[in-house]
Amino acid sequence: MAETARAPLAAAGITHDRAVFPEGLALDCGAVLKPLVVAYRTYGRLNDAKSNAILVCHALTGDQYVAETHPVTGKPGWWETMVGPGLPVDTERFFVICANVLGGCMGSSGPREEMTDADGRPQGRPWGMQFPPVTIRDMVRAQAKLLDHLGVRRLALVAGASMGALQTIEWAVAYPDMVARAMPVIGTDRVDAWIIGWLDIWAAPIRLDPNWNGGDYYGGPAPVAGLAEALKIVTHHARDWPWAETIGVKPAEGQDPRRSVTERFAIEKWLDDAATARARISDANHFLYLIRANQLFLKEYDSPEAALARSRARWLVVPSVSDRVFPIEHNRRLAATLKEQGRQVELVELTGPLGHLEGVVSIARAGEAIRRLLAE
Amino acid sequence: MAETARAPLAAAGITHDRAVFPEGLALDCGAVLKPLVVAYRTYGRLNDAKSNAILVCHALTGDQYVAETHPVTGKPGWWETMVGPGLPVDTERFFVICANVLGGCMGSSGPREEMTDADGRPQGRPWGMQFPPVTIRDMVRAQAKLLDHLGVRRLALVAGASMGALQTIEWAVAYPDMVARAMPVIGTDRVDAWIIGWLDIWAAPIRLDPNWNGGDYYGGPAPVAGLAEALKIVTHHARDWPWAETIGVKPAEGQDPRRSVTERFAIEKWLDDAATARARISDANHFLYLIRANQLFLKEYDSPEAALARSRARWLVVPSVSDRVFPIEHNRRLAATLKEQGRQVELVELTGPLGHLEGVVSIARAGEAIRRLLAE
Repeated sequence: MAETARAPLAAAGITHDRAVFPEGLALDCGAVLKPLVVAYRTYGRLNDAKSNAILVCHALTGDQYVAETHPVTGKPGWWETMVGPGLPVDTERFFVICANVLGGCMGSSGPREEMTDADGRPQGRPWGMQFPPVTIRDMVRAQAKLLDHLGVRRLALVAGASMGALQTIEWAVAYPDMVARAMPVIGTDRVDAWIIGWLDIWAAPIRLDPNWNGGDYYGGPAPVAGLAEALKIVTHHARDWPWAETIGVKPAEGQDPRRSVTERFAIEKWLDDAATARARISDANHFLYLIRANQLFLKEYDSPEAALARSRARWLVVPSVSDRVFPIEHNRRLAATLKEQGRQVELVELTGPLGHLEGVVSIARAGEAIRRLLAE
Repeated sequence: MAETARAPLAAAGITHDRAVFPEGLALDCGAVLKPLVVAYRTYGRLNDAKSNAILVCHALTGDQYVAETHPVTGKPGWWETMVGPGLPVDTERFFVICANVLGGCMGSSGPREEMTDADGRPQGRPWGMQFPPVTIRDMVRAQAKLLDHLGVRRLALVAGASMGALQTIEWAVAYPDMVARAMPVIGTDRVDAWIIGWLDIWAAPIRLDPNWNGGDYYGGPAPVAGLAEALKIVTHHARDWPWAETIGVKPAEGQDPRRSVTERFAIEKWLDDAATARARISDANHFLYLIRANQLFLKEYDSPEAALARSRARWLVVPSVSDRVFPIEHNRRLAATLKEQGRQVELVELTGPLGHLEGVVSIARAGEAIRRLLAE
């Protein structure tokens, strides 16, 4: 039986809504994580028929604050243009749930939380790299336990961006009877060797930072420089080249890149600052765990096609044409495969200079298709 | 007056052909580098009319061994399919020169060579980060001195791939009367803020490696891990996603990525190995200097268009459609700008799964266009 409570998140100095499942969760790697903690946010109200629940899944650098000001950064919720009163995902009509993923660092079980033994007894120190590896399917299983706890038996829609799209696909595949509609945004039908390689490149700066210390840094200096570099790659990779014209080619204030190899251009400074701000609400070890979860996407099935064949949902696939992280071709293949398998699929391609990021900041442009999907 | 000699390159355990210019070279940053050393290779013979010289310019991770087995790695020359007897750049007809770039690490003046003072007196220690920053224009000026030394007054063709394409463009712009034909391959008409940001991401792992030590590592442990990570990003960034299917999704031998976050996939291991092999013939500081040179491309001119307007050459622009480093759109813009400016331009777009790398490994597919260019 799960207990729900607001609990402090020491690292961020805030409290979270969370559910604690003492029986724990059996993971794909064979380990049992006990207890399982799932931090989450909800918006709107579950109706009496329990037919209006929508699950929203967050990206690698996101969290459960999808439709409200973030309590740490003070920034708008990451899909605030899509989820809210009167918006395409209308919280006056739907009960929207967003959970911090398993392995996340905003209150759910993860490497910076206190380690437990096989009986769930606290060990007085953080997990660090002793935390068991998790998969996207494990994340989805943890969310399924949360939904059960909240009394939700069926989802009108599962939607998510980037790693959230992978969770969305996994939901439609792992729980076909629970998912009426699925909307993967800036996702992919497979994390192939090329994407696996890129994800490893994202993670590499953390391992290079001497403060990372094999993951054993809690209580000492954190690998902030390595984590910031990792987040810098994500930030830049998630944008296409025309975007950068808004910053332009100029030196950072007070710097002269012609004078010394170590002085900075404005874009370098912008990326440094953006990454450092992100690093403040992140954690190096958790980043490594989520990278591996992305790499293992759908690998428990015979093939991506075999996995997708399990789905019974109605689909709205929303990629970005200029996406440099998850290629547009992967999304067209996803839509084509689902169609061949007899699913109803709409493909809405976002265009714009922001690459992968279009799926987060420009989602309102798919608003009509989303309303249509939810009306049917 | 320059002297030519074969000189040992201690780091690589080989000797190089090189020219030494005691008068040195005045650089864009204001410093005078004295003496200037340019290591180079030649193929074929300069004819009596001195009308058959071709300059080939190498990429950031390349060197002067363009058309012969590399003396350190034992691998084929990097454009061996284009330059040689009977090939599109026919060394039975042309005298082909390829110089290690200024700031390179295969024998030309660079950060790991011995530091000199304003009078050219050796200081008994390597330059490290005291080496002055160099630009693509400085590299071209150094090559111009080499050509003068070799008795070459005019070039039938300047050609180069990637950073070599930037040198090619700079040649046509800085020495319009010397360049009859220019062939930039997988280049760009401008290094914009987006590319500047990526180049900084390539460089970042070096700065994170504690062995880098602000560039002061010669004689101690070198920042091999950081340099290898940097080269890993270059290696992967230079390829498009369909390529990786040749490696596929599988664990590295003896590893199980499901069992532990630190165990490796085959593609991760492949990238590690490729990068480590490259790191063996490279140098971390030199990498930082070349990155900055790329970032400063054409920045000494009012605009890329103003720079290009100086050219009098006939052009063959050879981009790769799947290039993820220098976008295809940049190359189409380059060709369009040159056409508008009254130049004769042919644009030959390479297609294939290898991205940026197509310009190196598939250049023979532009062979007919190259022969046509050289026949006219």
